[in-house]
Amino acid sequence: MNVPAYAARSAGAPLAPFTVERRDPRPDDVQLDILFCGICHSDIHQARDEWGGATFPMVPGHEIVGRVTRVGPGVTKFKVGDLAGVGCMVDSCGRCDPCRRGTEQFCTQTAAWTYNGTEMDRTTPTHGGYSTSIVVRESFVLRIPAGLDPAGAAPLLCAGITTYSPLRQWGVKAGQRVGVVGLGGLGHMGVKLARSMGAEVTMFSTSPSKEKDAERLGATGFVLTADPAALKAQAGKFDFLLDTVSAEHDVNAYLSVLRPGGTMVMVGVPPERLKLSAFSLVAGNKRLAGSLIGGIAETQEMLDHCGKHGIVADVEIIPMQKVNEAYERTLKSDVKYRFSIDLASLKK
Amino acid sequence: MNVPAYAARSAGAPLAPFTVERRDPRPDDVQLDILFCGICHSDIHQARDEWGGATFPMVPGHEIVGRVTRVGPGVTKFKVGDLAGVGCMVDSCGRCDPCRRGTEQFCTQTAAWTYNGTEMDRTTPTHGGYSTSIVVRESFVLRIPAGLDPAGAAPLLCAGITTYSPLRQWGVKAGQRVGVVGLGGLGHMGVKLARSMGAEVTMFSTSPSKEKDAERLGATGFVLTADPAALKAQAGKFDFLLDTVSAEHDVNAYLSVLRPGGTMVMVGVPPERLKLSAFSLVAGNKRLAGSLIGGIAETQEMLDHCGKHGIVADVEIIPMQKVNEAYERTLKSDVKYRFSIDLASLKK
Repeated sequence: MNVPAYAARSAGAPLAPFTVERRDPRPDDVQLDILFCGICHSDIHQARDEWGGATFPMVPGHEIVGRVTRVGPGVTKFKVGDLAGVGCMVDSCGRCDPCRRGTEQFCTQTAAWTYNGTEMDRTTPTHGGYSTSIVVRESFVLRIPAGLDPAGAAPLLCAGITTYSPLRQWGVKAGQRVGVVGLGGLGHMGVKLARSMGAEVTMFSTSPSKEKDAERLGATGFVLTADPAALKAQAGKFDFLLDTVSAEHDVNAYLSVLRPGGTMVMVGVPPERLKLSAFSLVAGNKRLAGSLIGGIAETQEMLDHCGKHGIVADVEIIPMQKVNEAYERTLKSDVKYRFSIDLASLKK
Repeated sequence: MNVPAYAARSAGAPLAPFTVERRDPRPDDVQLDILFCGICHSDIHQARDEWGGATFPMVPGHEIVGRVTRVGPGVTKFKVGDLAGVGCMVDSCGRCDPCRRGTEQFCTQTAAWTYNGTEMDRTTPTHGGYSTSIVVRESFVLRIPAGLDPAGAAPLLCAGITTYSPLRQWGVKAGQRVGVVGLGGLGHMGVKLARSMGAEVTMFSTSPSKEKDAERLGATGFVLTADPAALKAQAGKFDFLLDTVSAEHDVNAYLSVLRPGGTMVMVGVPPERLKLSAFSLVAGNKRLAGSLIGGIAETQEMLDHCGKHGIVADVEIIPMQKVNEAYERTLKSDVKYRFSIDLASLKK
């Protein structure tokens, strides 16, 4: 089946109309009519081949929410009409140690990424959610809880799980003091999710203009990180920090606000090497960790959690035709806090 | 009571005979006749004021094993004749959050360090184990299990707890693959302790000459870190790394041998800032942590564990009079693996 899409035809070329072929559903496949797809910053990195090894033409998009239109005869968890989601992966080997531990994103065979990758046959290119339809193995399709706005739910499939997973891995809970560093697509989800787990949340930002919004999202504290005295006043006060910044920054300054035994998790990847003082970790048994999206079961758990707490991303809905403009605005952080592409715009 | 000791009279001066005054035991005090005191690398740093803020004259030594000679009337856990130990701390506030969590080393009032510090009155200087006797609050005195050689048990009070604590904090257990980076005073304890917890232990060393010794200590694998191919061959294989190196080194290379979700803990403090790639942590949900000695209850747990498994440090016993020579040899790593000062040499 040929379906309308938008693709980058070469590194850095503007995204333009394209036709992508989707396979007929196999026995264990689910076909979705895509309703919304979020724009993740990594879409831009990949469409511009900033990480290397990109393959073109490329149909980006891994924050996908749609309606089930067909299911293979072996599918048991979905039926036509269900609201469903697809995130960063569409398959993995299922047999290696990371897959068996529920961390398919670290599949030793390399997961089949939703776009800019290949299916596990290592031949068929994958194409993402900037299109009207997608066909995915049932085990990599997520249930979207009733009651969640589909446009706002789409970014949960990447921004949501990226911030939910570290909060869960490290057992964030009621009574803890949690700091979220940086208020963008990831940071705004971090505030909402940490708050929903009962933590007392403080926003760390370089920009005083973010204070009001941080409060609206659920933060009860605000630390202006451009002011060294403001950071110093927080020394030793936090149980956990979620660091969403992908530009260069001084991790030692942030580690200083952790209490002994506290943890800071990075979900962004600054291109420069961080200058880390071993003393920042040793003096206080502190922990600095990284986290990359989350496994499929954990993504479903996150969606169910969001359903229970009524959490979606704050989105600005755009038609597909405005994607290039949205990319430019994303690069300038001119979005509160995620673009969600309405695929109805491609179905006319 | 005035007792014989060795002290540095100024930064970098050779250690020389000195007389130190020990208080009469208070109701909750224990007095020890010191039998052995280990030489820790940090003794040298402090005697030479390499960390700043040192106070002189300084009687170093925080790896102390002795025989109880007097107890105050309120003491319940010790009686005259018991074998007992004193580690890096002799007191703390007991009321702050870190003290209540059993991590007195992070006391917000600053613990009373065994030497080069003050008692909690913040006036009385503390002096360490390079002396024939010491008087310490009962709650900071440790029981030495029967059957452990006192000379070899002394280094457990710092080198032992420094390596035991991170292994316990991170739940190292049977069936896991553990790497110990660097074979010195800390590394050799790390191998013995990780092995005693049932882990399969691999030594990572720059020196091929360490392979035989690593095997004798309990390691079943050896990786020559000077060979990039040897490190690369271990990619993704380890659950846990204990990094005992206090010289500059590439932590990214070591993080690459961890499996997804694996942890590396630094117990050494290289003076230079480490150049850490965020990608080394994010790609694999990896953790880099620090650890500083351990709390009092955990130190007792470590000693009991060592008693049960018959673990002591490998020591070279020297008289007090050879301490300056031993310092020079420690700096050249010319000791397998710890000097233990026999205080009988000061009692003639």
